[in-house]
Amino acid sequence: MKRSTVLLLAASVVAFSVPASAQFAKAEDAVKYRKSALFVMQQNFSRVAAMASGKAPFDAKVAADSAATADFVAKLPWAAFGEGTDKGDTRAKPEIWKESAKFKEYADKMQAEMSKLSAAAKSGNLGNIKAAVSATGGTCKSCHDDFRKE
Amino acid sequence: MKRSTVLLLAASVVAFSVPASAQFAKAEDAVKYRKSALFVMQQNFSRVAAMASGKAPFDAKVAADSAATADFVAKLPWAAFGEGTDKGDTRAKPEIWKESAKFKEYADKMQAEMSKLSAAAKSGNLGNIKAAVSATGGTCKSCHDDFRKE
Repeated sequence: MKRSTVLLLAASVVAFSVPASAQFAKAEDAVKYRKSALFVMQQNFSRVAAMASGKAPFDAKVAADSAATADFVAKLPWAAFGEGTDKGDTRAKPEIWKESAKFKEYADKMQAEMSKLSAAAKSGNLGNIKAAVSATGGTCKSCHDDFRKE
Repeated sequence: MKRSTVLLLAASVVAFSVPASAQFAKAEDAVKYRKSALFVMQQNFSRVAAMASGKAPFDAKVAADSAATADFVAKLPWAAFGEGTDKGDTRAKPEIWKESAKFKEYADKMQAEMSKLSAAAKSGNLGNIKAAVSATGGTCKSCHDDFRKE
């Protein structure tokens, strides 16, 4: 075999032998998993956001717990965007797999901002929480704008 | 007012003023939340269970991460079984609200066993993992048998 063919084969093995979806029995499990994790995250984030905007009374303990949960769960969806999970009951755009570096950058940015929100909520400073909610919400919106169907 | 009426009213306030579902905007959000959390938990637990039964090769790191995630997420569904969340797209039996002490006992037992599984997975001892998977799986089954519709 030519060296280039060997390298191509090796690259294929790296790309396909351990796809992120390998940990799911079926592609639809992966789709359901990422949607479930994102919903749990969104519900916890929204609870803190409602306090930040004054729509709900500020409860420091609930804010800290909710932000910590959102921070933990924010790490989970990404393993479920593996090869072959672009079909079925999903609003995921094909761009997720075409522009995977950009998608990962967005996902990483969101997780970083969610961690900052969790730290702010733990500190109990409402001003810091407001700023962090705004920054985190911006990362949600960017990703939905570019990578989620209407 | 009669004293008994006052006590009844006070009991109602305790029962309804801060229902667990208060943190959800709508009852259907609570239902979706608990189902989402239980699905994320089940997917992580099943990954470890597959290793314990030999259906999947043992990977200590994946087992520890998955069990830690299942342990964290196992704490989330229970706040979403508040008043008025017995309807809609749910297989929850009415017994959950009629026998709430028993339901809570089952939920607590499951969380305790899931924590033991996470500790076992962190230690990397496959024998301990197998025992903990079996104990945890038993608590899932008990609760489904008594509190989940077919």
